[in-house]
Amino acid sequence: MKQYKEVINQDLLDRIDKLDAPDSLKEAMSYSLEAGGKRIRPILLLAVIHGFGKNPAAGLTAAAAVEMIHTYSLIHDDLPSMDNDDLRRGKPTNHKVFGEALAILAGDGLLTYSFQLIMDDPHLNADQKIQLVRLLSECAGPEGMVGGQVADIEGENRTLSMEELEYIHIHKTGKLLTFSILAGAVISHADAAQMNQLERFAHHLGLGFQISDDILDVTGDEELMGKPVGSDSGMHKSTYPSLLTLQGAKDHLRYHINEAKKALEPINRDTSLLVQITDLIADRTY
Amino acid sequence: MKQYKEVINQDLLDRIDKLDAPDSLKEAMSYSLEAGGKRIRPILLLAVIHGFGKNPAAGLTAAAAVEMIHTYSLIHDDLPSMDNDDLRRGKPTNHKVFGEALAILAGDGLLTYSFQLIMDDPHLNADQKIQLVRLLSECAGPEGMVGGQVADIEGENRTLSMEELEYIHIHKTGKLLTFSILAGAVISHADAAQMNQLERFAHHLGLGFQISDDILDVTGDEELMGKPVGSDSGMHKSTYPSLLTLQGAKDHLRYHINEAKKALEPINRDTSLLVQITDLIADRTY
Repeated sequence: MKQYKEVINQDLLDRIDKLDAPDSLKEAMSYSLEAGGKRIRPILLLAVIHGFGKNPAAGLTAAAAVEMIHTYSLIHDDLPSMDNDDLRRGKPTNHKVFGEALAILAGDGLLTYSFQLIMDDPHLNADQKIQLVRLLSECAGPEGMVGGQVADIEGENRTLSMEELEYIHIHKTGKLLTFSILAGAVISHADAAQMNQLERFAHHLGLGFQISDDILDVTGDEELMGKPVGSDSGMHKSTYPSLLTLQGAKDHLRYHINEAKKALEPINRDTSLLVQITDLIADRTY
Repeated sequence: MKQYKEVINQDLLDRIDKLDAPDSLKEAMSYSLEAGGKRIRPILLLAVIHGFGKNPAAGLTAAAAVEMIHTYSLIHDDLPSMDNDDLRRGKPTNHKVFGEALAILAGDGLLTYSFQLIMDDPHLNADQKIQLVRLLSECAGPEGMVGGQVADIEGENRTLSMEELEYIHIHKTGKLLTFSILAGAVISHADAAQMNQLERFAHHLGLGFQISDDILDVTGDEELMGKPVGSDSGMHKSTYPSLLTLQGAKDHLRYHINEAKKALEPINRDTSLLVQITDLIADRTY
């Protein structure tokens, strides 16, 4: 996974470098891509391909596309009119460095470029390109991540029901994780039954990921996380611990992690790397 | 054209209505789509298909996609950190009604949804879908409209060279007009030579469109335009009249309009509607 991560990091910057676009725009796009992060979406995508015994190189473009979409969403989320964050992973946020106008446009550019990348990938056939663009636009758009972000904003400063909280997380975080996993399946020519199981896996993994995030916001180490502990409750956001108690949230996390692993069983491929990532998410400390 | 416009208007709203997304997001997306405008991009797209003797219904999805991208760009352009406009076509801008956060997300949603639409269109074959997404992402992204918007912002408050001014307009306005025209050609199964001529047509039409816009900013009727005359020079933006004098700009406009019409001649199709639109753009009063 560490190897994948290095390849992904370099690949992302190479793709921006190639663009025939104003230097300042390319700089702003690269800045947030370089800011690092766990690259969990690209790694999941490549881990699925690995599990199906295919060549992970065939997934690099889709991996870059989903990381660009994730990065654009962070740039826009950090804006003063949204979460108004000055720091992200210990570095000044995009608009703090480049100004709001360029930050908005860098986000728009990353979002649009992600579709262009998929179209130009020589490893994919026509049918795969169409499936990937359909999946990506659904998962990232109004019926996916953007919808979840709207629900999240509207849910601030009031106590949500569990149903509302799950809607937000399934859409805001879960859909892009689902894209990553299903994109790996599309590239690996998975069959319909395998796609179904992987979608179930993605659903539970996504919720597990978010619950562990909420738990870390209560119990985590500020230095490791690069952001202050308790920032969610400070913003009066409903979280799993606030709705279920800390122990209830931990039980819930355990449930989704188990369900995620169970979903992998009938796939009949080498899912060991996916199981390993699932455990890492369950036990992460930042 | 009036008939097309009504069909386009209804079609756009129907497509938002269909979305499984938060109501507030759908409302914000619809608000700016409904705000009207000339629908010049969808009309150009359908006019190309009409000229090739094909069924314009096959172009409705691509027409909706390009109008959504155009609308998202207006929503983001109007934001306080960009042009800071309170009014657009005589109505309060999106962020004035829905707040900045929802306006940014409505723009993100429109942009992403436009790709989803193309994927789900039953009139298009796989190859056409791929060509349209490639064209749209190139024309709308960092190498197209977003790049032009960045150059426009960076060009404020200083006098541009003609080369810089043309870069801005070719990218900021021209590329999406080019998409509209080439998308019509893709849907009509135009051959490579026809595509080339239509690309030349689009280039000159786009510059003509922008020059006439600049001229109207000096000579136009405020009430017809729905915005104050002289707002470009008030913002210290370089324009064709400011670089070439008003008469020079008019000569330049005439040149591009003639070149646009000349590019249509070898196409050997019924281009009368495209010629008519070109003349309307040359002589428009708002």
